[in-house]
Amino acid sequence: MPGERELVELFLRKFKARNRLPVPLGDDVSAWSLGGNRLAVLKVDMLTAGTDVLPGMSIRQAGWKAMVMAVSDLAAKGVKPLAALIGLGIPKEMVEKAGELAEGLKAAAEAYRVKIVGGDTNEAEELVLAVSLFGTCRKNEIVLRSGAKPGDLLAVTGNFGLTGAAFKILLEGYRAPEPLKKKILRSAYWPRARLSLGLKLGRLGATASIDSSDGLAWSLHELSKASKVGFELHRIPLAREAEEFARLHGLNPSGLALYGGEEYELVATFNPKTFMKAGKTLRGRFKIIGVATEKREIVYFGGKKEEKRVKALGWEHFRD
Amino acid sequence: MPGERELVELFLRKFKARNRLPVPLGDDVSAWSLGGNRLAVLKVDMLTAGTDVLPGMSIRQAGWKAMVMAVSDLAAKGVKPLAALIGLGIPKEMVEKAGELAEGLKAAAEAYRVKIVGGDTNEAEELVLAVSLFGTCRKNEIVLRSGAKPGDLLAVTGNFGLTGAAFKILLEGYRAPEPLKKKILRSAYWPRARLSLGLKLGRLGATASIDSSDGLAWSLHELSKASKVGFELHRIPLAREAEEFARLHGLNPSGLALYGGEEYELVATFNPKTFMKAGKTLRGRFKIIGVATEKREIVYFGGKKEEKRVKALGWEHFRD
Repeated sequence: MPGERELVELFLRKFKARNRLPVPLGDDVSAWSLGGNRLAVLKVDMLTAGTDVLPGMSIRQAGWKAMVMAVSDLAAKGVKPLAALIGLGIPKEMVEKAGELAEGLKAAAEAYRVKIVGGDTNEAEELVLAVSLFGTCRKNEIVLRSGAKPGDLLAVTGNFGLTGAAFKILLEGYRAPEPLKKKILRSAYWPRARLSLGLKLGRLGATASIDSSDGLAWSLHELSKASKVGFELHRIPLAREAEEFARLHGLNPSGLALYGGEEYELVATFNPKTFMKAGKTLRGRFKIIGVATEKREIVYFGGKKEEKRVKALGWEHFRD
Repeated sequence: MPGERELVELFLRKFKARNRLPVPLGDDVSAWSLGGNRLAVLKVDMLTAGTDVLPGMSIRQAGWKAMVMAVSDLAAKGVKPLAALIGLGIPKEMVEKAGELAEGLKAAAEAYRVKIVGGDTNEAEELVLAVSLFGTCRKNEIVLRSGAKPGDLLAVTGNFGLTGAAFKILLEGYRAPEPLKKKILRSAYWPRARLSLGLKLGRLGATASIDSSDGLAWSLHELSKASKVGFELHRIPLAREAEEFARLHGLNPSGLALYGGEEYELVATFNPKTFMKAGKTLRGRFKIIGVATEKREIVYFGGKKEEKRVKALGWEHFRD
């Protein structure tokens, strides 16, 4: 079976239109021109029990996560989500928990000021949640994957590695002392989207952007592919707890950070001049981790070895 | 377990907002104000293999049907769909058929001039398709379920009973001679949405509208509930093949027509004056079947008995 990402590409390729769309198929969101320089921005993100619901995750958390996943994609494009529709497929034996699921969705919608305006439900063999988001923006405001230029700064909104550690615990049976474990699992059970920072991307001169939902390494490769640039990474910001966890188990911490996923930080490139013109406080929310290069390869200079290729792998491959 | 429709209501009720939405939760579509009297119209319709894919239906037909189901809801509101997103959940063993599925979706999208602009895919235990549609309209153009007034004409866009007969064949083992069977099954395998007629609803003075996807009887009850009117039915337009099938098996043909479903005709009420002002050819596409009444009950005057209550039942209940 092709991996999920290949499947998306194969499936979407069938719909390739002759006419150019405001946002190309395969970017994180889709768009439709409303005329007069305005775009309607559209997104559907699907959560399925088998793929996205982690062991020990409550149904309320699943609802929360489904909304966060979709919001994060608009955040990465610098677009404010306004309205959501919920498509729900639910197994018979779960119906009594539909209320909790709705509460999780609603809590996330409220956290990001999205209004749930409708939906559809259906009986299904497993829990499936399709969150459709709608927002609007001006044409020049949307930040695609494809605009990075050599020399642009590469920056991220947070530290990495917590969800990688959480996967080790939840999917591979690794252990950790209770307080550490709790903090690590929280990152996976209650993910957050970087919406308010996403809405600042434009002001900071962002040239390309994506979220790190498939892992930092994967996101870098996607930006590289769409923008036709490479990256030199000079640091990988690690969450303290991820470092602690890595030390505990003799794991490579940058592996956890690069090949994790379901971490919804923003990974963006910036025109250096515009970026440096922004206020220090705002700039401080984005950590510069490297620079875009002409040469289309992704290299990390931070390790003990001189340099190290960052592979186009996500979590599934890293596990093996 | 609550029925599907109750489940939708229970689930959506959780999202009831304080502020009024341009289209109330529970109508066939949702909307968001774009400012200046313009609305963004949004819809998600979910097809699941267990509920919506009939025995013998090809995966291409399932794709076609998923798009038609969603288009029909916009048609019933008088709104032209512009763009679609596809959320796909697909089991491993079906992945090689994703191309056929995409072709079915694409064929329907082309038939109704909708552009598929994006989507998301996921591995799932059964086939799930969430079709999200986007369109725009002026605020006064959209036809809700709630505007029917006593004295309004009740009209439909076609004949009923074919899908009811198809369900008897596919789900209950009824038989029919080959050419008849073929015509009947075609209605269920290749449903059509009444989009071009839906876009004429405004010009004809439509006051309320819905499609008959849950069966004619159910649609009438929904219009009745939302508009706070009743209906007197004077005729039920029957497809010739449905009549033939009913005769063959000694079934009540109006039962097939009233309690079928997955028939995507429009069921609408019209201001009589505006309706009669429209051209004969256009009016002729809508068959007047009754009139809206002050008294909130739905009565059919067409049978051999003097009058007959139309029950709020869909196919599931009719079968038992």
